[in-house]
Amino acid sequence: MAQADFYSDNVAPVAGAVLRAIVAANAGPAAGYGADAVSQRLQRRFGDLFEAEVRVFPVATGTAANALSLSALTPPYGAVYCSSVAHIHDSECGAAEFFTGGAKLVPLPEQDGRVSVETLREAIAGAGVGRPQKVQPAALSLTQGTERGTVYPVPQVRALCDLAHEHGMKVHMDGARFANAAAGMGVSAADLTWRAGVDVLSFGATKNGAMGADAIVVFDPAIAEALTYRCRRAGQVFSKMRFVSAQLEAIVEGGLWLDLAGQANRMAARLGSGLGRLQGVELLHPVEINEVFVRMPPRMVEGLRARGFGVVDRGGGIVRLVTAFDIAEGDVDALLDAARTLE
Amino acid sequence: MAQADFYSDNVAPVAGAVLRAIVAANAGPAAGYGADAVSQRLQRRFGDLFEAEVRVFPVATGTAANALSLSALTPPYGAVYCSSVAHIHDSECGAAEFFTGGAKLVPLPEQDGRVSVETLREAIAGAGVGRPQKVQPAALSLTQGTERGTVYPVPQVRALCDLAHEHGMKVHMDGARFANAAAGMGVSAADLTWRAGVDVLSFGATKNGAMGADAIVVFDPAIAEALTYRCRRAGQVFSKMRFVSAQLEAIVEGGLWLDLAGQANRMAARLGSGLGRLQGVELLHPVEINEVFVRMPPRMVEGLRARGFGVVDRGGGIVRLVTAFDIAEGDVDALLDAARTLE
Amino acid sequence: MAQADFYSDNVAPVAGAVLRAIVAANAGPAAGYGADAVSQRLQRRFGDLFEAEVRVFPVATGTAANALSLSALTPPYGAVYCSSVAHIHDSECGAAEFFTGGAKLVPLPEQDGRVSVETLREAIAGAGVGRPQKVQPAALSLTQGTERGTVYPVPQVRALCDLAHEHGMKVHMDGARFANAAAGMGVSAADLTWRAGVDVLSFGATKNGAMGADAIVVFDPAIAEALTYRCRRAGQVFSKMRFVSAQLEAIVEGGLWLDLAGQANRMAARLGSGLGRLQGVELLHPVEINEVFVRMPPRMVEGLRARGFGVVDRGGGIVRLVTAFDIAEGDVDALLDAARTLE
Amino acid sequence: MAQADFYSDNVAPVAGAVLRAIVAANAGPAAGYGADAVSQRLQRRFGDLFEAEVRVFPVATGTAANALSLSALTPPYGAVYCSSVAHIHDSECGAAEFFTGGAKLVPLPEQDGRVSVETLREAIAGAGVGRPQKVQPAALSLTQGTERGTVYPVPQVRALCDLAHEHGMKVHMDGARFANAAAGMGVSAADLTWRAGVDVLSFGATKNGAMGADAIVVFDPAIAEALTYRCRRAGQVFSKMRFVSAQLEAIVEGGLWLDLAGQANRMAARLGSGLGRLQGVELLHPVEINEVFVRMPPRMVEGLRARGFGVVDRGGGIVRLVTAFDIAEGDVDALLDAARTLE
Repeated sequence: MAQADFYSDNVAPVAGAVLRAIVAANAGPAAGYGADAVSQRLQRRFGDLFEAEVRVFPVATGTAANALSLSALTPPYGAVYCSSVAHIHDSECGAAEFFTGGAKLVPLPEQDGRVSVETLREAIAGAGVGRPQKVQPAALSLTQGTERGTVYPVPQVRALCDLAHEHGMKVHMDGARFANAAAGMGVSAADLTWRAGVDVLSFGATKNGAMGADAIVVFDPAIAEALTYRCRRAGQVFSKMRFVSAQLEAIVEGGLWLDLAGQANRMAARLGSGLGRLQGVELLHPVEINEVFVRMPPRMVEGLRARGFGVVDRGGGIVRLVTAFDIAEGDVDALLDAARTLE
Repeated sequence: MAQADFYSDNVAPVAGAVLRAIVAANAGPAAGYGADAVSQRLQRRFGDLFEAEVRVFPVATGTAANALSLSALTPPYGAVYCSSVAHIHDSECGAAEFFTGGAKLVPLPEQDGRVSVETLREAIAGAGVGRPQKVQPAALSLTQGTERGTVYPVPQVRALCDLAHEHGMKVHMDGARFANAAAGMGVSAADLTWRAGVDVLSFGATKNGAMGADAIVVFDPAIAEALTYRCRRAGQVFSKMRFVSAQLEAIVEGGLWLDLAGQANRMAARLGSGLGRLQGVELLHPVEINEVFVRMPPRMVEGLRARGFGVVDRGGGIVRLVTAFDIAEGDVDALLDAARTLE
Repeated sequence: MAQADFYSDNVAPVAGAVLRAIVAANAGPAAGYGADAVSQRLQRRFGDLFEAEVRVFPVATGTAANALSLSALTPPYGAVYCSSVAHIHDSECGAAEFFTGGAKLVPLPEQDGRVSVETLREAIAGAGVGRPQKVQPAALSLTQGTERGTVYPVPQVRALCDLAHEHGMKVHMDGARFANAAAGMGVSAADLTWRAGVDVLSFGATKNGAMGADAIVVFDPAIAEALTYRCRRAGQVFSKMRFVSAQLEAIVEGGLWLDLAGQANRMAARLGSGLGRLQGVELLHPVEINEVFVRMPPRMVEGLRARGFGVVDRGGGIVRLVTAFDIAEGDVDALLDAARTLE
Repeated sequence: MAQADFYSDNVAPVAGAVLRAIVAANAGPAAGYGADAVSQRLQRRFGDLFEAEVRVFPVATGTAANALSLSALTPPYGAVYCSSVAHIHDSECGAAEFFTGGAKLVPLPEQDGRVSVETLREAIAGAGVGRPQKVQPAALSLTQGTERGTVYPVPQVRALCDLAHEHGMKVHMDGARFANAAAGMGVSAADLTWRAGVDVLSFGATKNGAMGADAIVVFDPAIAEALTYRCRRAGQVFSKMRFVSAQLEAIVEGGLWLDLAGQANRMAARLGSGLGRLQGVELLHPVEINEVFVRMPPRMVEGLRARGFGVVDRGGGIVRLVTAFDIAEGDVDALLDAARTLE
């Protein structure tokens, strides 16, 4: 029997409303490269969502959103601070280095996926500001929710942004799971980003019910100007943009993005809570979005896989389970039941 | 009344079969990043189509396909020869320069969009091969069908490839309208590419009925290896790849790509033929694919636009009209009727 | 018998005063990377020379000076206009593309090596400003004296700079033979550069008596800040900087640079004048600095070479002769005598 | 009274023989860009020195030598392993990232500046070879002598190279203080490099008596071909190359490089030994080349500086003292005497 897949949120299908929006967008000709009505409307929709003038650049992948964002924030001789487990550092095949012309990612120690203000302060203090042999602090990249399934509380985001700005740096937020963070915290998109000091956001939708649609959301017009060209030059401007814009519009329409992410979060909470009660299973990080990290006996991992559950073994007995928007209580309980038999 | 849009083939909607394939792909979870069944199958489908072992890399845009292809063919100190009207040179915001680490595009004189063997020979002869102050001939990029609505006959492709290979260069084919060329010439995909010496093809589908799906088709495993990483690093590997692969599969399934392109070509022929008979209209290039280039009185251009027809004025009275796959005889005739009243 | 070498001005040895300055700089320890007394003094010397606050970055080669300068003036998606015979376009193996992260050099038609205001205006008009598929006008690079042995009169420099600035572009001057231009025109360094609107100058000294010392002279502090890091990152900051600074100081000390260049210019004038009187020899460009371009019968070229004279055959019977600072009247007359026997 | 400067070996002047060679090279015209007699001879001299066919590329700085070397060894999506204190990682303003098109430096834990075979093995094991989201192991860069004043014994170099080659990687040696390592170990240049598996060497001369001359020494013709163009494109090919070649020739002539380095090493040994006997001073690493690292009371550091001794305080009470080739016993003893009064 096929079991639910907890491998990643990008194994999930496309949410119904998104698919319907794609189909609806397929009516007759429309101007290319973002000049169509849906794409134009999208700019305003995101403006409403973020309660600000913003510029939205739909792109094909989260990697593109991140790397393009950073390319607009750092000179080639800049240092980009991120956590040591940041996706941009660890899992994007050097995209950030490529798009920035060779800027340097500086991985910082993290706790539960979060970089502390103190850690950033020390890094800047030791960076050699003004010394020509040193790459110069240029940008901070925060992942919200983090790669360890946690979130940055708003005051921490603000404190990190303030510190970065004091030193002339810009702040990027990798929001591959921004919806999960916003839903989990019950905080508005504006409060989570520009009101706290974020300059550019990678707004992830693909992991949250879209088909292939992420977006760069820019709160600063000067950055937007550069991205107009950088996106095109990167082959990230769809000629039939309407179909990507339609996905993004459908995702934010009526708060769907928060509904989907909220469901995913609740399933992760249920899963984490259930697993944490099992003998020999250790919950490694607080479950604040839709990811659960546990230490689990090898026997249990193998048993779950043998029974058809997709889970990621990260080595050393550490297992990650991700609940996409389409995971239901029954899926979670089926996994928990199976795990119990493997205690 | 809304009229047909002859602005570009990317103003067209998505072909029905493609949309159905996307919907069909949306069934339950599937592995990400191309490990899904549709994407795996796509490799074989393209192998069948090209009668060879190939590697297919689905990407978001034609610009990405072109620039990534070139990045695998030239060192940063290489010269990439193309026609002076090549899309890679003229309309991709320097993508080729970006992806190659600063290789130099060398535009060559063209006739009807085609570069002649003699022209290429002279360019290589004057390139300063082996002189360190000169960028070194590394790649040739041919557009098939060309940016002037014509095609390269197979013998000319072969002669150009032979010449390039003799000088240690590789050959890229920009096939944004490859389907139109293949349909127009009645030549197999294999004969048009690797059998004639092409090393890498940008296979365009977006202009031919897809939603957002182009592909790099590689005939050389060593190049494929590098592209595996280059594509990822460029943010061009979709996590939910199945939805892009499904588009490509639907396009080639049962020869749909040739049917759609053939229809587009026929409409262009009809349009070109009709326009060519008008007073004051001069057909500028043979109509061999789905583009018509004419010199037209300003009054006629303005009149067509006033009546709602999308056409591109390229300056100097030169007008481009593109017939997408969804243009019907009635659309063409309506434009011709309108034009006649503007003679 | 060894004859003088008219092959290039970089076949010449080092001027005596420069060599003495190097030897003088070799006294005991000195701080590295430009913190030494000579290098500090150099900043002021160039300030005096240019009658302005400037920042000087000594670098190893003219190619480095040009490419680094441009990297500070254009974003990667920029267009850099230059003449079609510009050294940066033709003879630096793509250095500008490399250092700028893939900006595009746009070669413009020239007359006697000079780009006209009208030509630049047309290029900008056709550039597609604001269109994302087009690289955006970012910089103009003028060579003074030009690659054809001529100079730009000051009013022309000013008009070109004004036009560039009107369109938000910056202006670079490739001054590989800046000394020859200044000496030939009898114009001050300030009048030739920032007073006419030049933003950054590649100040060439190697061709004019130095050993290996060119410099970027920056008239805008914001550009200087970026170059501090870009130069280091390019491996262009000498640890024992004093020895390069000493060369530059010696070159400008007491007007030596103008004396050396003046001598070179006079010899070129003598040579050009003499050759122009010969049967079958055609002077191709006005001789305004230290280069002479002639069309000459193959027999004469071969004969001169057979007699030991270094000259460059550029193909098509076009011959370039360069007079370095160490060429004397006797050298010129010997060549003219030889040429006469080959008429 | 002026005291000796232990700040760095690049505060030293130029060795007499080197200066004489420069002066000697200044005789009449000579072909540019390495076609002169001295530069041609240099190729053979280095061939003799390394007992192999080599290609030598003289460059302006050690940073250029390192970054250019790496650019020929790794694709842009490669990982370059080095120690966490490697100069290429820490003190070259991202040059390696720039020249390689954005490859990733992966800093590894070190002990006394050395990376162990075990550490490298673990790094490769965890690198995700073949996984597209990961930069791929491409090169290893070893510093010989290390940034902590130690050397890699030949068997360790060989074991590291073997391991790297087994995984398809290439090996670069940063030999900014290669002479000090060779002199200290009494090992031939060949045994220290290609015989142990090194593919490319940055041969430092500037820190060892030259004026501004480092060299890339290549043991593989395919790499040399690429560097021909990469060096030019980087503005690292001197037009008056003879003056740089002459420095390199003088340095290796008659073993001068080993004599100078040997003297520097002996002075470091004397200094380290003397400092190690002082109350409150702790020798932090074995003194195997010409650098001494100690922990020293702040009072002592300040006192030494107040008495005019140049030393580098690296923070946390850690002090580096470097003995250049021109440091004499009296200089060392003067510092030791001063330090004793500050115990």
